[in-house]
Amino acid sequence: MSDPDVRAVTAAHTGLYRAVETGDLDLMGAVWVDGPDAATAVCVHPGGTPVTGRPGVLRSWAALMAATPYIQYVLTDLEVGLRGDTAVVSCVENVLTAADPPAPGSGGPEHAFVGGRAVATTVFRRTAGGWRAWVHHASPVVDAPDPFARGRGEGRAGEQDEHDDEHDEGGA
Amino acid sequence: MSDPDVRAVTAAHTGLYRAVETGDLDLMGAVWVDGPDAATAVCVHPGGTPVTGRPGVLRSWAALMAATPYIQYVLTDLEVGLRGDTAVVSCVENVLTAADPPAPGSGGPEHAFVGGRAVATTVFRRTAGGWRAWVHHASPVVDAPDPFARGRGEGRAGEQDEHDDEHDEGGA
Repeated sequence: MSDPDVRAVTAAHTGLYRAVETGDLDLMGAVWVDGPDAATAVCVHPGGTPVTGRPGVLRSWAALMAATPYIQYVLTDLEVGLRGDTAVVSCVENVLTAADPPAPGSGGPEHAFVGGRAVATTVFRRTAGGWRAWVHHASPVVDAPDPFARGRGEGRAGEQDEHDDEHDEGGA
Repeated sequence: MSDPDVRAVTAAHTGLYRAVETGDLDLMGAVWVDGPDAATAVCVHPGGTPVTGRPGVLRSWAALMAATPYIQYVLTDLEVGLRGDTAVVSCVENVLTAADPPAPGSGGPEHAFVGGRAVATTVFRRTAGGWRAWVHHASPVVDAPDPFARGRGEGRAGEQDEHDDEHDEGGA
């Protein structure tokens, strides 16, 4: 029975996004692999190139947080796939960030937000310190009709619930 | 000593790209996980949303191949990270595809090509059938200066050799 593992992986995944939303570098550090897994950590931010190794990965998140005064994620289409000591979580990131402030005196709203949509896959490893993020790849979604959407299964097109399913839990 | 594993993972990774270049669906099927791992396979094509499960993943590749009369990849910045029975490969995909043919009589070249750049992370699992792709995420690279590039390490900026290093091999 590996439901507790799926819950633990989901909690770790939530922690990653909470760390970004709250600008919590300690939490981000606790989310990612350390020790013998640290050198092989990989992270790709939307539009970016791969960052390899825990120090670089954490620096990249620090830079992203520093450049982001406000960010809020609503995650949809979340799926957890668990195989032994490795888990993959895929999701759609619906992102709300602060818009650039309008020119002074332009009459524009002082606080405005812009929305965006990205997708992410995150691979977790079971470690002595719990489930830790090992690989994270996020990328922008092109708004054209997605030719691959059918591949997810006919019944999924209208589903947008958060944490809508967790499928296929493999045993260790 | 796990060098043979790094070589095997690199060969599987090469197989994935060769399958696309040659439109070889049998080879693509042999690259991806099957059996108990099949349901948790995840693939994200550039600009797309996650496709989950082997049948959908293979359909998505078939659709991509059918829509791509010519494609050639030059992979750079390839890095292999191996941890036990799981491996992650990150790389930059320098892609050459056939351009749309010019209007008849326009005098444009009959065969033209366009270049593009994407990045990919691919996670492989060691299975009874060898190392198989379990998660593949590819995304476009934004050509603006990459704020995260420093995270790869100070010495990497000028490196563009193919298969330029393979680092940190963990033992099983």
